[in-house]
Amino acid sequence: MSNLLEQLSWRYATKKMNPEKSVPQEKVDRILEAIRLTATSSGLQPYEVFVVTNKELREKMVPHAWNQAQLTDCSHLLVFAAWDNYTEERINKMFDLVNDERGFVNEGWENYRQMILSSYPPRDKKVNYEHAARQAYIGLGTALIAAAEEKVDCTPMEGFVPEEIDALLGLQDRGLRSVILLPLGYRAEEGDWLVNLKKVRRPKEEFITEIK
Amino acid sequence: MSNLLEQLSWRYATKKMNPEKSVPQEKVDRILEAIRLTATSSGLQPYEVFVVTNKELREKMVPHAWNQAQLTDCSHLLVFAAWDNYTEERINKMFDLVNDERGFVNEGWENYRQMILSSYPPRDKKVNYEHAARQAYIGLGTALIAAAEEKVDCTPMEGFVPEEIDALLGLQDRGLRSVILLPLGYRAEEGDWLVNLKKVRRPKEEFITEIK
Repeated sequence: MSNLLEQLSWRYATKKMNPEKSVPQEKVDRILEAIRLTATSSGLQPYEVFVVTNKELREKMVPHAWNQAQLTDCSHLLVFAAWDNYTEERINKMFDLVNDERGFVNEGWENYRQMILSSYPPRDKKVNYEHAARQAYIGLGTALIAAAEEKVDCTPMEGFVPEEIDALLGLQDRGLRSVILLPLGYRAEEGDWLVNLKKVRRPKEEFITEIK
Repeated sequence: MSNLLEQLSWRYATKKMNPEKSVPQEKVDRILEAIRLTATSSGLQPYEVFVVTNKELREKMVPHAWNQAQLTDCSHLLVFAAWDNYTEERINKMFDLVNDERGFVNEGWENYRQMILSSYPPRDKKVNYEHAARQAYIGLGTALIAAAEEKVDCTPMEGFVPEEIDALLGLQDRGLRSVILLPLGYRAEEGDWLVNLKKVRRPKEEFITEIK
């Protein structure tokens, strides 16, 4: 089995974390770096990641996240927050950064910028947000693997009220909307109903179709 | 640097593939298995993956995908297709499979099934599709890493007309909608404008915010 398949088999949505065990910062940093490095559409990286270690703030978030204890039992709570819209300013900032970093202006890249500028900002704001939110899920898929490589447990969570989490983190003023929570921590020795249950996936024949 | 960070640094959105080089089937199989194993919301796996090797069909798809040559220069074209809706039948099928595989019925799990059944199917079909599409992006994030582990090149593509790709693959009749194309192949020796350019990402300070 490849490293990756082993990691994906090892991980599970941890239901009960040990509040006494903290994830070392260098592991958290490598998980964040993996998220930063992975792909997004046109390289725009239309989301940000918040790392909440503040205990009081996490306690305030709990009632807005179905009272899930992992928010406070974890040591680092990641919040993926997508751009609420694609604006000219945001798009230009990223294209400019690419030019600056590469040290030259590529004509094809500039034509592509114009194409994005003429198509994204005029679209409905909700369409743009949904598109940005999808990119955050590439980051989520990456984070699950990065955590497993570090033998760090985590639980992807969509069960929360985004508007209330946004309000607690002040996301609206930054043009962001929370899309996923990902507590990082370590599974508890006892009390996790899921830890010993078989991981179930649809059989290959029902998930994959070859067209030859 | 961890394995994963090396893999993420190695990969790039390949612009020119070598049509003479085919990805060995066992590598494709491991990439698909990684996608199958990764997480989805409530474990519903609300998407399917099509592996198109048929050359004629891929040629027909090209004009509906901005004439991108990777569709035919790759050896295996993955199409991620999300459920167009969450139905009672689809939800029950997955919950039943979990019970069958685990060999018992868990009360908490059954309560969770009822919660999902009472909230997903009554929602707007478009909301459900968007939710399913996001899950496919977890699979995409996984596939990018799986391909890199195999030293296989790939290019995530949103640049296509979904309705036309759906029609060519007969997806509508199966209640599916195409969301991403991912050609798998090998970079060409020459002709790829992107291969030697620096990968640019927003600096950590602008992508990650710590709340201590």
